Amino acid sequence: MADPHAHVGRTLADPDTPFAVVDVHKVRRNIERLSTRAARMGVDLRPHVKTAKSLDVAALLHDGAPGPITVSTLAEAEAFADGGYRDITYAVGIDPHKLPRVLALLGRGIALRVLLDSREQAEFVARASREARIPVPAQIEIDCDGHRGGVKPEAPELIEIGRVLHDAGCLDGVLAHAGESYFAFTAEEQRRASDNERDTAVTAAERLRSAGLPVATVSVGSTPTAHFAEDLTGVTELRAGNYVFFDLVMAGLGVCRVEDLALSVVVTVIGHRPEYGWIVTDGGWMAMSRDRGTSAQAQDQGYGLVTDLAGNAVPGLVMTAASQEHGTLTARDGAPLPDLPIGTRLRVLPNHACATGAQHRGYHVVDGSRPAAGPPEIQDFWTRVSGW
Amino acid sequence: MADPHAHVGRTLADPDTPFAVVDVHKVRRNIERLSTRAARMGVDLRPHVKTAKSLDVAALLHDGAPGPITVSTLAEAEAFADGGYRDITYAVGIDPHKLPRVLALLGRGIALRVLLDSREQAEFVARASREARIPVPAQIEIDCDGHRGGVKPEAPELIEIGRVLHDAGCLDGVLAHAGESYFAFTAEEQRRASDNERDTAVTAAERLRSAGLPVATVSVGSTPTAHFAEDLTGVTELRAGNYVFFDLVMAGLGVCRVEDLALSVVVTVIGHRPEYGWIVTDGGWMAMSRDRGTSAQAQDQGYGLVTDLAGNAVPGLVMTAASQEHGTLTARDGAPLPDLPIGTRLRVLPNHACATGAQHRGYHVVDGSRPAAGPPEIQDFWTRVSGW
Repeated sequence: MADPHAHVGRTLADPDTPFAVVDVHKVRRNIERLSTRAARMGVDLRPHVKTAKSLDVAALLHDGAPGPITVSTLAEAEAFADGGYRDITYAVGIDPHKLPRVLALLGRGIALRVLLDSREQAEFVARASREARIPVPAQIEIDCDGHRGGVKPEAPELIEIGRVLHDAGCLDGVLAHAGESYFAFTAEEQRRASDNERDTAVTAAERLRSAGLPVATVSVGSTPTAHFAEDLTGVTELRAGNYVFFDLVMAGLGVCRVEDLALSVVVTVIGHRPEYGWIVTDGGWMAMSRDRGTSAQAQDQGYGLVTDLAGNAVPGLVMTAASQEHGTLTARDGAPLPDLPIGTRLRVLPNHACATGAQHRGYHVVDGSRPAAGPPEIQDFWTRVSGW
Repeated sequence: MADPHAHVGRTLADPDTPFAVVDVHKVRRNIERLSTRAARMGVDLRPHVKTAKSLDVAALLHDGAPGPITVSTLAEAEAFADGGYRDITYAVGIDPHKLPRVLALLGRGIALRVLLDSREQAEFVARASREARIPVPAQIEIDCDGHRGGVKPEAPELIEIGRVLHDAGCLDGVLAHAGESYFAFTAEEQRRASDNERDTAVTAAERLRSAGLPVATVSVGSTPTAHFAEDLTGVTELRAGNYVFFDLVMAGLGVCRVEDLALSVVVTVIGHRPEYGWIVTDGGWMAMSRDRGTSAQAQDQGYGLVTDLAGNAVPGLVMTAASQEHGTLTARDGAPLPDLPIGTRLRVLPNHACATGAQHRGYHVVDGSRPAAGPPEIQDFWTRVSGW
């Protein structure tokens, strides 16, 4: 695909498969839903752009303005800075080796915050700030549920880290992420995960403040907790990323409906193995990723659920196996294996939008709100930021 | 990483992590091993370039000459044709929509073979060949063990397909792939898988020949069967791809040793959670892929085994969990969790080289045969072909 833009004005029947498609109508609707929730709770939204990694998707987040964002790599920070974004949180624990790139962005006037959870990192950040005479704003990661990094809100180290940062003019705030929300399968459990995320972050902030260490930002969020939170008192900002596209993992958690999934992969039928009950496509794990996030859920969705080219579900058809460039579709729930000739195009809804998106250079864009007699028209091609 | 070549002449301590590294010494050794085997069995080798997707790696396959190769996408076929390769098999069942690109390559004088396993596809290929007045050479995929596409060697359709292709001047041969070899855990089982792959392909070729349909190519192979085959009588060419890098899945199958793994990912320690027994790194699934191929093997290797920057194993240290940009390392087999300060760089050996390579734009190259006092020197940067 030498020139992705050559496809603009064509339909989903045109580009060679497999390729990724985004329904901009669903993206807008998903964004509107969370923006409305955040506004109602009186909290700022700082969307994580790591899912779409697209300036075009990000342009829909804040009504076209380059508002606050969260990133997962410095490559994203740099690409979004180039695109006009000036308020960025880099939400992966800082590697001291990366501080020169952080300082370069700060030197360009970008308000870039880093994350850390150790005194060792805080000292690296403080030293780099003093040497460069540019304070690197830093947030302390708070562990609310034992799923990744962070210090416990009651840990003595919290205050030590806060003091090292404060003395260097670097302390910005605290940040928590409810990893547990990916294992919370009822609204009640999700609300508990959200309350716990909030309480942990606010407790940590209050401890720091009681020690005379000012805390500006109290940041919480994950796509599930952001959608189930009811009361974010004490929190200053909410993060979520996956919700722009959603995926089958989120549908399995009850955060969205399958109809809300905005990202899919167009594949072509290239074979039939009726003796095994298989339809074979040209979309394997290279197109879908190896992510099998729903395998831990009540309803395992294989590598994805299948729709027709217009996005209507093909009942019971699931992509159950993948090799590099082959996908295997099978029928379940007593559904018959549909009669789909060689060359038929389908769309596969992924387990995990972040992982599936990453397998593609960008997204062909359709607008599901525009009725089409034939295959949906391609409105645009949105490129992705990649690398680190 | 704006200019990957800017890293040449530096060491593995220099580029920001995570990044992929290839040890060219191991690549050469792995290539030499299979080339010697194939020569001893008197069979041509047609390496699959889908693992490395790199012209630089391919240049090592045939002593620098652009010899016969197998590809998994037309993007690879086009990139390798641009690089001087003129003898290419595209080993994924042909989607009729892609025939214009196949014909364009044939029109450039590239001997490009397509694969198919249905009369429907054969008729598309025959029609396109007649319309373009360029016969599209085609191989019939033979199912030897029920793992993907293919027709059974005894199926009546085999002869029908052969005739449709022959009448259009398109019949080139047959191709089988022993998917079962990925589930064969002893040398005896591997040899059985290899014998079966050979017997199935040769039987299919003989049936076609008995029907008056000439078969030039009898192609078999997978990395496991290629390394366990002892007798390939009747076979004209052997395919294998993964072996240039190897990976933990192959080591688990006994095809190679862990020391033969040529691809790894350099990551940095960014946190410690002693209360959970974790070391946290900046290499998550974005850097490693979501592939967990060893989870089905006797020894589950998590997301990968850990070595130091020079490539020496850190005993018992395994990457057991991943989020997008975080990796969690834990100790097993009673090994103590090593004391690795923030900023320590490590290398992680992947489950599946094809999947891990695909997460990167290219490979920083080191030469493990050159002793180094400090971190290994970067010799080169090899880019990858991506997309479809």
